[in-house]
Amino acid sequence: MTTTTVRAEPVEALRQAQGERFVFPIRVYWEDTDAGGIVFYANYLKFFERARTEWLRSLGLEQSRLREESGGMFIVSETSVRYLRPSRLDDELLVTAELESAGGASMTIAQQATLKGSRTLLCEGTIRICWVDTARLKPGRIPPIILQAINHTP
Amino acid sequence: MTTTTVRAEPVEALRQAQGERFVFPIRVYWEDTDAGGIVFYANYLKFFERARTEWLRSLGLEQSRLREESGGMFIVSETSVRYLRPSRLDDELLVTAELESAGGASMTIAQQATLKGSRTLLCEGTIRICWVDTARLKPGRIPPIILQAINHTP
Amino acid sequence: MTTTTVRAEPVEALRQAQGERFVFPIRVYWEDTDAGGIVFYANYLKFFERARTEWLRSLGLEQSRLREESGGMFIVSETSVRYLRPSRLDDELLVTAELESAGGASMTIAQQATLKGSRTLLCEGTIRICWVDTARLKPGRIPPIILQAINHTP
Amino acid sequence: MTTTTVRAEPVEALRQAQGERFVFPIRVYWEDTDAGGIVFYANYLKFFERARTEWLRSLGLEQSRLREESGGMFIVSETSVRYLRPSRLDDELLVTAELESAGGASMTIAQQATLKGSRTLLCEGTIRICWVDTARLKPGRIPPIILQAINHTP
Repeated sequence: MTTTTVRAEPVEALRQAQGERFVFPIRVYWEDTDAGGIVFYANYLKFFERARTEWLRSLGLEQSRLREESGGMFIVSETSVRYLRPSRLDDELLVTAELESAGGASMTIAQQATLKGSRTLLCEGTIRICWVDTARLKPGRIPPIILQAINHTP
Repeated sequence: MTTTTVRAEPVEALRQAQGERFVFPIRVYWEDTDAGGIVFYANYLKFFERARTEWLRSLGLEQSRLREESGGMFIVSETSVRYLRPSRLDDELLVTAELESAGGASMTIAQQATLKGSRTLLCEGTIRICWVDTARLKPGRIPPIILQAINHTP
Repeated sequence: MTTTTVRAEPVEALRQAQGERFVFPIRVYWEDTDAGGIVFYANYLKFFERARTEWLRSLGLEQSRLREESGGMFIVSETSVRYLRPSRLDDELLVTAELESAGGASMTIAQQATLKGSRTLLCEGTIRICWVDTARLKPGRIPPIILQAINHTP
Repeated sequence: MTTTTVRAEPVEALRQAQGERFVFPIRVYWEDTDAGGIVFYANYLKFFERARTEWLRSLGLEQSRLREESGGMFIVSETSVRYLRPSRLDDELLVTAELESAGGASMTIAQQATLKGSRTLLCEGTIRICWVDTARLKPGRIPPIILQAINHTP
């Protein structure tokens, strides 16, 4: 019995062209919803993280590899999110990630989730991530390789 | 074969005495952690919600019953959270819920998670919840019975 | 500021050609892992469900629409899963869904998760789903339109 | 401002007397439900794990400490679960954990979730857990201290 993949590479590494925001599509499944019939609000943090992860990957930054090579990782230190419109089972969302600011030890990423098609804004927020050493979780300076990759983003 | 419950009622309905904050204990399980070895940050929103739910229940407000009787429910419209210290598998947290402000259509609740014992502050934030009708999710005024129960909290 | 989607349609509706299994790619994110450093076993049930949902969608069966039109939905009544090898952050999995048997009121779907590339089998199991009416959750007969779509799968 | 905990110790370490099963109470929150209005089936695996964890803790076996002291941990290798009746927001469940069999390298635990009050059986299953070394996840023999603690359970 042969086997077929229904889509090609889910995300291709790519550097965003100037003036573009990174956008990642996310489908709503049963696991994402709650008894209100809508996506459980805390799950937008998961959607945002998937988009951030793919944004970093698109810049050549894979977190598991960074961790092995540098002994450090990003952790989330602050989240600020507004939930504007509900989404539901089977909806397709487009989730953006855009660098808002980067310091020596932390970065803030602005993110939005919109409904594909109508482009209704569902949810938006900012996520601050800090660099820590993996073993002791002590804050440290973001490795230059990461800042370079991010700053070369137009 | 007989059966024994290892603790009595998990939470007794009670009205907090003056000058006291509602506190709810939460244990960290495998499901709450991530590969960083610590509690996944989005899960503090779940911990905060469990504490808010028990706080409301302690005021005589059970959400499933409110929904049946009033045709409405609370949904979360805004969350603002700072993650200060990590917690780990088997940790015991104490999670608070305290009314910060209440308007006609929404309330803001201040919440904190501390490590039991050391009382280290792990995470704190504010959660804004709005009242909507269950069928169409349209915003509406919080039913008087809820505001009364909350305002009678000393 | 323009906006770019990094992949085209995440899944195209398609009918699988004869002798082929439905395969859906899934990336492992932080949310999927636990403090053991690996994917939390319960999350394979989520991965399996995403693949089942996309398999049904590829047959023209979208669950939210079925629910509106028929007043019924599938619920899971039995799961049997073996966890063979761990997967980790950033891994890419291929998750299959294949009809094992279909009766009047339930179906059993066989599913596997393999590591993309090495094709290592990570996890496999069978999931039985039953048709119920949405309002009272009473078991009922699977609508003919669904059985036809599934049985026309070669 | 003083602070009050609304329940005492959530679980007291205790050895079950003969003929008794370990029972752990679990409340259903929004996070546990899905758009079907009921507890999402995969979440019973979380409920079962909380009860297993507390059962082990009641025998003096705390997993985070075991891991530090022995360099090993349990991982789940097989789950077999039947979902019989739905549960809903605010329901109180009683979840049991009972040793079914123990070998040198794995144990099987039988578990049930019932609705408190009516004692309706909601969900039941068996979970097989294996001992592995934490660093490489290679299977190994369950440390004698664990088998002794478990076998002394009447």
